[in-house]
Amino acid sequence: MNFNQMLLQKQSIVNKRLNELLDISGIPEVLHNSIKYSVEAGGKRIRPILTISITEALDGNILDALDFGCAIELIHTYSLIHDDLPAMDNDDFRRGKPTNHKVFGEAIAILAGDALLNFAIEILSQKAINNNNLNYIKAINEIFKASGARGMIAGQTIDITSENRILSLDELYKMHSLKTGAIIEASCTVAAYISGREDRLEEIKQFSQHLGIAFQIVDDILDFVGDEKKLGKTVGKDLKSNKATFVTILGLDEAKMKAQEHTKKAIEIANGLDKTGFLSKLTEYLLVREN
Amino acid sequence: MNFNQMLLQKQSIVNKRLNELLDISGIPEVLHNSIKYSVEAGGKRIRPILTISITEALDGNILDALDFGCAIELIHTYSLIHDDLPAMDNDDFRRGKPTNHKVFGEAIAILAGDALLNFAIEILSQKAINNNNLNYIKAINEIFKASGARGMIAGQTIDITSENRILSLDELYKMHSLKTGAIIEASCTVAAYISGREDRLEEIKQFSQHLGIAFQIVDDILDFVGDEKKLGKTVGKDLKSNKATFVTILGLDEAKMKAQEHTKKAIEIANGLDKTGFLSKLTEYLLVREN
Repeated sequence: MNFNQMLLQKQSIVNKRLNELLDISGIPEVLHNSIKYSVEAGGKRIRPILTISITEALDGNILDALDFGCAIELIHTYSLIHDDLPAMDNDDFRRGKPTNHKVFGEAIAILAGDALLNFAIEILSQKAINNNNLNYIKAINEIFKASGARGMIAGQTIDITSENRILSLDELYKMHSLKTGAIIEASCTVAAYISGREDRLEEIKQFSQHLGIAFQIVDDILDFVGDEKKLGKTVGKDLKSNKATFVTILGLDEAKMKAQEHTKKAIEIANGLDKTGFLSKLTEYLLVREN
Repeated sequence: MNFNQMLLQKQSIVNKRLNELLDISGIPEVLHNSIKYSVEAGGKRIRPILTISITEALDGNILDALDFGCAIELIHTYSLIHDDLPAMDNDDFRRGKPTNHKVFGEAIAILAGDALLNFAIEILSQKAINNNNLNYIKAINEIFKASGARGMIAGQTIDITSENRILSLDELYKMHSLKTGAIIEASCTVAAYISGREDRLEEIKQFSQHLGIAFQIVDDILDFVGDEKKLGKTVGKDLKSNKATFVTILGLDEAKMKAQEHTKKAIEIANGLDKTGFLSKLTEYLLVREN
């Protein structure tokens, strides 16, 4: 199998498991539909694929990694639903489809986000009960530290409170390291806990930090030059809203160079982590992606 | 000490611990202020007091129970912030103060709610790591099943999607057993897990279900006849919005009788659970409260 086939296979495994996890009774129909709408809207499933790939490389339990990765994807999905709300970024489209509140209304969109965050902890605490493994609790703690008021939510707070004010490059790094970086880092580090390989934590952190920055710079470049159809969302939005991005601060060429630099550093570490080469190819793919 | 002094003492212990738990660095100032604003707005702290009182009665670890109770109070607070939002119940006042979004804006209010839910998991997973006790994970799982899409969030979904439609008495019971009952039940049942006394689970569930229903009926009665100043929120809101309540369906006298019946049943069980008498007095107090 070549890289693209492996990526598609992993995405399909993640999608299948997400469907299974959401296929439960006892949820009011409109709420259930709203939750499934956003989870099934797709996305690259980068976070769960990072979790399972690194766990595989460390000889950990892949099925457990899959559930941890899926829970992280649910947290990621909740954050997108809430970020898209009129009071926040006020986005009408996401992944080529109307945003959750456009279809289900704001109240249900808020509740669907809340429910996804809740659901992630339900899944993971059940996993920890089934395994009775202290490392799994450590992994859970990592995830929710990353998604909380000192992680992802701090990043989103800085983002929305700094509109109409130009962030410095350092502030921009900090904002993104919180808003998207922290949860990408957790997607990677939980693999070390699941596999009982805390000795690899530092290395994995370094990898994920370079990957996270490169990922965000590429996002900013795509917002500047990307193809609206391939992206599935409005481009040029950052520019119009006068938001600082890596492109507006560094210029397009310098931003591309920075993305390449961080990708290169991430790949060097990935080669040491994963002898199959999948992780480094994934890192390369995230640099050249078109959405 | 009489009951009122004991209640005040327990409330003060809970408030002190909530302050300690929230006194952390690394949260953006406006988000931190918004979180503290709603947590410090007060409330009776019934949920954590239930957790610590029942744990005390079962000879469990009170300090751990305190943190579990405080985490539940943070979940309760997040649910109030989100429920008050314009897209939901659109409330301007809560506990005599402007609601969170009135002070901090909708975006920060949404994020503060998200952060509180996250924070509850951070606290509890850290507790579980410190203790490495499977029962603590079971307690965590109970809490988030209660607050999730098949519990509290299901109740809120039924509530907001049934406005302008009159619920039957059975539907009203179901809605409240989810919206407020599930998390009250969890406040009580976690005490059994913390104390390693799962043999008392069934009894505690019975107690909490009667208490939860009585609590909700009294809420509806207070909305109908209560003193706005003592309640700290607008009264008569249910009537104006044409919402089904225990008073509109049963009438005031029948509603009072039902509240007394459930209180009586809860007290009978409380007497068996807690020989100090505090739990039964707390149950009685919730019937005659004015806010």
